[in-house]
Amino acid sequence: MKETPLTPAEPMLWSGWGDPAKAAELPAPVRGLLGDLLGVRAPAAPAATFGEVRLPAAALPPPVQAALAAIVGDEHVRADDDARIRHTRGKSTPDLLLMRAGDASDAPDAVVLPGSHDEVAAVLRLCAEHRVAVVPFGGGTSVVGGLVAARRGFAGVVALDLARLDRLVSVDPVSMIAELEPGLRAPQAERLLAEHGLTLGHFPQSYEYATLGGFAAARSSGQASAGYGRFDDMVAGMTVATPRGALEIGRAPRSAAGPDLRQVFLGSEGAFGVITSLRLRVHRAPAVRAYEGWRFESFTAGTAAMRRLAQEGRPPTVLRLSDETETMVGLAKPTDLGAAGRDSGCLLVAGYEGDTCDVAHRRERAAAVLAEEGGVHLGPEPGEKWAQGRFSAPYLRDSLLAAGATVETLETAGFWSDLPRLYDAVRLALLGALGSPLVMCHISHVYATGASLYFTVVTAQTGDPLAQWAAAKRAANEAIVRAGGTISHHHGVGRDHREAYAEEIGDLGVEILRGIKERLDPAGILNPGVLIP
Amino acid sequence: MKETPLTPAEPMLWSGWGDPAKAAELPAPVRGLLGDLLGVRAPAAPAATFGEVRLPAAALPPPVQAALAAIVGDEHVRADDDARIRHTRGKSTPDLLLMRAGDASDAPDAVVLPGSHDEVAAVLRLCAEHRVAVVPFGGGTSVVGGLVAARRGFAGVVALDLARLDRLVSVDPVSMIAELEPGLRAPQAERLLAEHGLTLGHFPQSYEYATLGGFAAARSSGQASAGYGRFDDMVAGMTVATPRGALEIGRAPRSAAGPDLRQVFLGSEGAFGVITSLRLRVHRAPAVRAYEGWRFESFTAGTAAMRRLAQEGRPPTVLRLSDETETMVGLAKPTDLGAAGRDSGCLLVAGYEGDTCDVAHRRERAAAVLAEEGGVHLGPEPGEKWAQGRFSAPYLRDSLLAAGATVETLETAGFWSDLPRLYDAVRLALLGALGSPLVMCHISHVYATGASLYFTVVTAQTGDPLAQWAAAKRAANEAIVRAGGTISHHHGVGRDHREAYAEEIGDLGVEILRGIKERLDPAGILNPGVLIP
Repeated sequence: MKETPLTPAEPMLWSGWGDPAKAAELPAPVRGLLGDLLGVRAPAAPAATFGEVRLPAAALPPPVQAALAAIVGDEHVRADDDARIRHTRGKSTPDLLLMRAGDASDAPDAVVLPGSHDEVAAVLRLCAEHRVAVVPFGGGTSVVGGLVAARRGFAGVVALDLARLDRLVSVDPVSMIAELEPGLRAPQAERLLAEHGLTLGHFPQSYEYATLGGFAAARSSGQASAGYGRFDDMVAGMTVATPRGALEIGRAPRSAAGPDLRQVFLGSEGAFGVITSLRLRVHRAPAVRAYEGWRFESFTAGTAAMRRLAQEGRPPTVLRLSDETETMVGLAKPTDLGAAGRDSGCLLVAGYEGDTCDVAHRRERAAAVLAEEGGVHLGPEPGEKWAQGRFSAPYLRDSLLAAGATVETLETAGFWSDLPRLYDAVRLALLGALGSPLVMCHISHVYATGASLYFTVVTAQTGDPLAQWAAAKRAANEAIVRAGGTISHHHGVGRDHREAYAEEIGDLGVEILRGIKERLDPAGILNPGVLIP
Repeated sequence: MKETPLTPAEPMLWSGWGDPAKAAELPAPVRGLLGDLLGVRAPAAPAATFGEVRLPAAALPPPVQAALAAIVGDEHVRADDDARIRHTRGKSTPDLLLMRAGDASDAPDAVVLPGSHDEVAAVLRLCAEHRVAVVPFGGGTSVVGGLVAARRGFAGVVALDLARLDRLVSVDPVSMIAELEPGLRAPQAERLLAEHGLTLGHFPQSYEYATLGGFAAARSSGQASAGYGRFDDMVAGMTVATPRGALEIGRAPRSAAGPDLRQVFLGSEGAFGVITSLRLRVHRAPAVRAYEGWRFESFTAGTAAMRRLAQEGRPPTVLRLSDETETMVGLAKPTDLGAAGRDSGCLLVAGYEGDTCDVAHRRERAAAVLAEEGGVHLGPEPGEKWAQGRFSAPYLRDSLLAAGATVETLETAGFWSDLPRLYDAVRLALLGALGSPLVMCHISHVYATGASLYFTVVTAQTGDPLAQWAAAKRAANEAIVRAGGTISHHHGVGRDHREAYAEEIGDLGVEILRGIKERLDPAGILNPGVLIP
């Protein structure tokens, strides 16, 4: 079993996902599917080259730019085309479609790179004074429009790139807490922790590029959440800079002293403040990593097995179940699952990480449950195949977009008894909005009381893929809200989920957010337009 | 092993704790200690009788009282002496001292008993309109001054007693969630759930009288938190009534959609709204309950063992460690622990609840760790003794107060590496403030990154026990804040911790609370003076 890759990421492709060297060729069966199943007939129009991108003139008032430079240093205020284009929006499907079309109209006027908490604080004070909107920027991996500031009413927009806040500040091996800075990309953080024999255990699909600050601000959930917890479980404390001053939050693992203010900033998406330091729960690096596959007759049967594992406690570290369609598409040879023809059942991947003894015990218990619930053990190969490709799906998206397909992922979560209804509602909404798309789903995060549902939808691109995307997105959002799911289990709210989120939490829920924002950011400069309607 | 008592509680003693029939005689060794060790020479002055209590005239404007009666029914608005006295303050040491002195000056003007969410909502709207302060009232067990409204600026004060909201609304056996109403006392809730073979697993010391709504509003933590989680872990969803309308919170076990609003109301102590329904995670009632004792040479050694259990995962369901003094005082015969004289070491109680196989496995693993860390197994007797007396300490407090001692408990939590400093700081502060009190401590809640510290302090009463209490409390609060602990791990903030809490969360933390309150309760009628400075 190969180690999870922990090398630091190269700068991300400006117009798509990830390391340009890793661009994915579409596998032949996928190319076949696009034509045969979805009716994709022609590739998309070629993407704009870097030189063709239309970038608005930078609008930041020169005195503000000079004052920013006085705070962070000349070289850390960048208004060049390269910096501005690389900080334009995130990596959602519409973000990529716009960039492919050469549209950088949402570019910030400048990119500011502070080197310390105090510099962040000074930048926020300055921007509040001059009504300059600030978009906190970590890995730039948002897929929900979390990095586009509403310009109206502002003198300009700066991206506040936290890349220079990249230190492992300290390790407390007694409390098993490490203090880390928010600009660390996940692989950098893992490499620094590995020198102490430690790991965070947080591996979302955005792992190669996303930052710790982004994980916290977006309430991220990693693929191994059943074992290591979600990122919000890992945050023991944090320092937050706001235009009105700093907060230090988290004096104890848990407390009865009032609301848990950590949980106010986790998921705040830069609208309440900028996280400048994180105290995170760490684990000893696992001695063993073992992934394996199981086959279930149906999504229903596999879901029941996952539920038992989650409710009986100590489930596998990784636990994911693909529905019938995702299982079929994911397999080069569907018969690999041991069933004939299209009736290939559903693939469940279980992964175990920990020390030898603990893994052996958990694996034995889980295997007993999975077998009792009708699972057929497939051995390590499907698990290892998943582990090797675990961060590769976003690369495939770029190739699909270029090939003339529109592809999107969206996700929700609900309580176990609501899941079948939620699953049906989202599938039907997507089918209704898109004609005959391919809709696949998996469960990748389980809890005692419920689980997530993660949908991938692929369809032939129409002449206006943005409008096509918007219609499908609206239908899916409405279906999720109506079926009682949460609008996002791991992607966040951003702009794309803002209205659905407002419906989810209701008018008074929105009032709570506004009440907090008004106190911390009275000028409203922090990521305006994101999260709060 | 006896079952945890699940019988519903009788009405609580108006002037002290609990069921009057269970009043505790002071054991002879305790009486000896009071005289020999603490210099208690005479019992306290006799407590006021019910007839002697000084109750201010009820000040609620008659039209408001009539309007309240129109909402909830005549018989559910009570302004009689009995109802008012029984809703005066909570059960903190100063609360008891004041009531012993016949002082009911903090009595509400009336007690209102709504029968539904809609009635709660209507009461809140009415009270907001007429500027009548509302103190949400569950079991009345606050030990931090959580039930005393600041009268200034209000036309009156009503206690909003939720006792009539006492239904098990539904059970979802798939999601393992039960919907329960907030006025259910814990034993009632357990009895109703037991009919479905279920349990909450929440057993704080206030268990016999406290309500589910109080557990949520005060962010309660039960004695079995290592196994079943804290109450805040159990809340899947809730309905909250505010003067401006209702909130429905919690559509999924976890979400990435913004801040976790459940965590805003958990710990809000009635200042943001009134919880009218709770969706709670439930467990299958355990087949096995086994408690046992272990001896450690020192608090330090026992703490190290607990830390290992917490960090390696799946600790015992109950895990508590008494320091040297608490161990000595807690034992009728100190030599029971197997060491001679005063050097009796420290008692650790480990409890296991679950199915037979799971308990056996966890017990075996825990036993190996405890033995490796120097623990000596004492068999079931000390564990069962603890389990039988687990809800009895508050009864003893009444007897101690009557006998002429001042007794108080206070608690904090911190990260593991901070615990020794926190322990010393609080002990020294109490010793400094009180001369030569008896200061005992235990750890009863453990997490991967830290633990709670629970102090019991007993001293000879001075002529002004309230002033004596206040000085010691101030010293302890200051010590906790300075040493970096949280001001409360399970009792909450109330009025007694309000200023220390403000120091803990800082000016901007307080601003967050004020921003939320302003939006939900613009007239500021909800539990004024509690939580928010």
